[in-house]
Amino acid sequence: MSESRFEMVDVGGKSVSRRRALACGRIVLGERAFALVRDGELPKGDALSLAEVAGVLAAKRTADLVPLCHPLGLDHVRVGFTFDETAGAVTVFCEAVTSARTGVEMEALTGVQVALLTVWDVSKPIEAALAIDGVRLLRKEGGASGAWVHPGGVPALPEGFS
Amino acid sequence: MSESRFEMVDVGGKSVSRRRALACGRIVLGERAFALVRDGELPKGDALSLAEVAGVLAAKRTADLVPLCHPLGLDHVRVGFTFDETAGAVTVFCEAVTSARTGVEMEALTGVQVALLTVWDVSKPIEAALAIDGVRLLRKEGGASGAWVHPGGVPALPEGFS
Amino acid sequence: MSESRFEMVDVGGKSVSRRRALACGRIVLGERAFALVRDGELPKGDALSLAEVAGVLAAKRTADLVPLCHPLGLDHVRVGFTFDETAGAVTVFCEAVTSARTGVEMEALTGVQVALLTVWDVSKPIEAALAIDGVRLLRKEGGASGAWVHPGGVPALPEGFS
Amino acid sequence: MSESRFEMVDVGGKSVSRRRALACGRIVLGERAFALVRDGELPKGDALSLAEVAGVLAAKRTADLVPLCHPLGLDHVRVGFTFDETAGAVTVFCEAVTSARTGVEMEALTGVQVALLTVWDVSKPIEAALAIDGVRLLRKEGGASGAWVHPGGVPALPEGFS
Amino acid sequence: MSESRFEMVDVGGKSVSRRRALACGRIVLGERAFALVRDGELPKGDALSLAEVAGVLAAKRTADLVPLCHPLGLDHVRVGFTFDETAGAVTVFCEAVTSARTGVEMEALTGVQVALLTVWDVSKPIEAALAIDGVRLLRKEGGASGAWVHPGGVPALPEGFS
Amino acid sequence: MSESRFEMVDVGGKSVSRRRALACGRIVLGERAFALVRDGELPKGDALSLAEVAGVLAAKRTADLVPLCHPLGLDHVRVGFTFDETAGAVTVFCEAVTSARTGVEMEALTGVQVALLTVWDVSKPIEAALAIDGVRLLRKEGGASGAWVHPGGVPALPEGFS
Repeated sequence: MSESRFEMVDVGGKSVSRRRALACGRIVLGERAFALVRDGELPKGDALSLAEVAGVLAAKRTADLVPLCHPLGLDHVRVGFTFDETAGAVTVFCEAVTSARTGVEMEALTGVQVALLTVWDVSKPIEAALAIDGVRLLRKEGGASGAWVHPGGVPALPEGFS
Repeated sequence: MSESRFEMVDVGGKSVSRRRALACGRIVLGERAFALVRDGELPKGDALSLAEVAGVLAAKRTADLVPLCHPLGLDHVRVGFTFDETAGAVTVFCEAVTSARTGVEMEALTGVQVALLTVWDVSKPIEAALAIDGVRLLRKEGGASGAWVHPGGVPALPEGFS
Repeated sequence: MSESRFEMVDVGGKSVSRRRALACGRIVLGERAFALVRDGELPKGDALSLAEVAGVLAAKRTADLVPLCHPLGLDHVRVGFTFDETAGAVTVFCEAVTSARTGVEMEALTGVQVALLTVWDVSKPIEAALAIDGVRLLRKEGGASGAWVHPGGVPALPEGFS
Repeated sequence: MSESRFEMVDVGGKSVSRRRALACGRIVLGERAFALVRDGELPKGDALSLAEVAGVLAAKRTADLVPLCHPLGLDHVRVGFTFDETAGAVTVFCEAVTSARTGVEMEALTGVQVALLTVWDVSKPIEAALAIDGVRLLRKEGGASGAWVHPGGVPALPEGFS
Repeated sequence: MSESRFEMVDVGGKSVSRRRALACGRIVLGERAFALVRDGELPKGDALSLAEVAGVLAAKRTADLVPLCHPLGLDHVRVGFTFDETAGAVTVFCEAVTSARTGVEMEALTGVQVALLTVWDVSKPIEAALAIDGVRLLRKEGGASGAWVHPGGVPALPEGFS
Repeated sequence: MSESRFEMVDVGGKSVSRRRALACGRIVLGERAFALVRDGELPKGDALSLAEVAGVLAAKRTADLVPLCHPLGLDHVRVGFTFDETAGAVTVFCEAVTSARTGVEMEALTGVQVALLTVWDVSKPIEAALAIDGVRLLRKEGGASGAWVHPGGVPALPEGFS
């Protein structure tokens, strides 16, 4: 006989509560692609609008992509951006909120990762040597374990995020 | 910094309640295709059975298709049809019901739109100049805003709908 | 024994050729929602950017939604809009192109239908009595049956479409 | 007019309760493929890890595949295996648990069916004449109808299942 | 370093050819559910129409479900049924055809498995102790390995299959 | 009238050729989670098997996630890992190969991103302050633009990759 190899943790004993997570990640575009992304002037179109939609849709499909994630309803998802002109980089933020038995860290991170891929896709005709770094969970709230903030702190957030 | 371009409204503050929506839409088939659809005699098969299944499945995938829709469980979905022989047209109805924090108008409408596409797909070998019109929300119930009925009223419904 | 009820036509005997289809459909928004959609000022955000992304993604998922459609690669998809201020209406256009054994009418139509649903979703807080009409195939090219244009002709197209 | 052909039962009147289902099914591999599957030595890789992941993911997508299933959240899913060396067969077990208004038999069965297909896929280069049999619901708990056990009883379960 | 655990075989060196596969599987329903399924009189509706649509859709999604399957276009898919009144059983057949670099056995089998699940779903209110057995590949054609027929032969096929 | 905001480039004029892309990305796990991942001893199970399956599946769904990516068949996908014990980090590699009119960089990158998310998901009970960095395209081959290698070179690859 064979023991179960993977464990999608049983969350039936946890209580339904409001849970929230905020994640971010950065794509380094180089000077030329950065200016085109920031100004919405890439040949393929406005990268940030595209990335925002792709990130929101991806957050909703997290349980389809990450095998041990629980399928759950989401109360709210949003995606925003900050810019670092010196580094030629855009940072993507994704916040996910649920009223459920388990947290939404993976939903926020999936939103970030797919939004970053979308910026990559429209920037690659300009610059092939793109790079993604700094993908991390910034904070989470709700559930038995309570609030957590990344030990490195939370960077300046996009307008409208708090 | 960049403000969030799109807003998937935060429904966490709304209460869970029984919510229901009914939508419809019409496909004008022309005399010959109409008769074949109504009688289940198209070469590709029984258009209405096919459309009914496709509409129910699509209603369940609304949040995958419409970017700012909330993913939610559904208590009930059904699809039905009425016929207008004079116009050579079939009207598709879809009703969706949930116990959730947000309404199901988009689920009902998505069921209608995909059911109409499915009738189109099997009818197009007979008639290329098909047309869809009259897609609208007929009524909704539940939630803080209460009941709403389309100002144009509700047409005759398929048998079994009320 | 039971005869097969539905027929996903065998396209193996058809030749691979460049095939193209253009479809459109209209959403009547009313004066106030129309102005907000056209100017990108809806509370939920820029309806047309959102609808364009949703339409492109949906066109790629046509075979997942319409049961008898063949899964196929797409060379090109685009979504555009024209405005009718008098009617308070936006018309969505979707063009799909493939190099395949079968046509892409359903892909173009699915792109239109989901883009229309997306405009609906962000407009419904302003106006509940929305309506979709005029959904039709405008033209198709390629394959054994050759070019076809809707007998009602092709309306003015969005900039960049030809 | 046309009566609704299919009925996705309205579960709005049922109460949310903890519901659990366990299903199983067997794939007969033949002596050679059986040994390779059991020992994780197939050319395509460790069949059982692969099947376990595929089964868990599929259980989460049940409502996308089975038209009248209700979309619902899952608290827990797991997949395990037992071996019958004499028969050259592997039995797949899948357990699904929810806190919802309807049962999860179909989720458990879908997990079993897709896990079996996955074992098939990696075993078919070794043996084409594979066979699946003995797919059945073993037990279910929760909801108004209470506990049910298959009249044929429950076979020896994988380690960690109870 | 870690060797790749799983191998999605590289089919780039294979030639594109017409490939075909036929699979089947049986669901034992018991006397009462069998009669209702055969006659389309289940409370939830016509099980066989529903199963046929679900099977066709599932065959198109095989590569989404079975991890190492190649995504490919399909020329043709169909689902049919035969009945064994003595056993109270329905046998589902699914045939898939492609013009591709790899075979479609898994597509045919996935169509069978999901069609069987769909019959199960609508029959379970009548009979809980259902059983699926006899799932197997009946024959395949095309590709370097040529034609193969199951050593147990091919049973009587549904009308229209050959 | 409104110009098309986004451009899914028309690849119909490009020739079908064998195209290949290799991407990588790193997850920094910290000492404790690193050891558990490397040794397959996490409470939730063998992270690397899980990540490999999730990455392969995600590569196949790239066009569903990244809005302007073309849907295409894949000849081959594989995922592998290297370990940096000093940094407590695992690097994920994904290679994708197609015979198509457009490249597979985004498929390789999507495989990397989802495999990294999967490692994150099973490691987060051990360490919340995880980080992903170094996501980049390492090389691509095929198509009009020919071979490209990242200016920073290609790191040591997993066993079996070349």
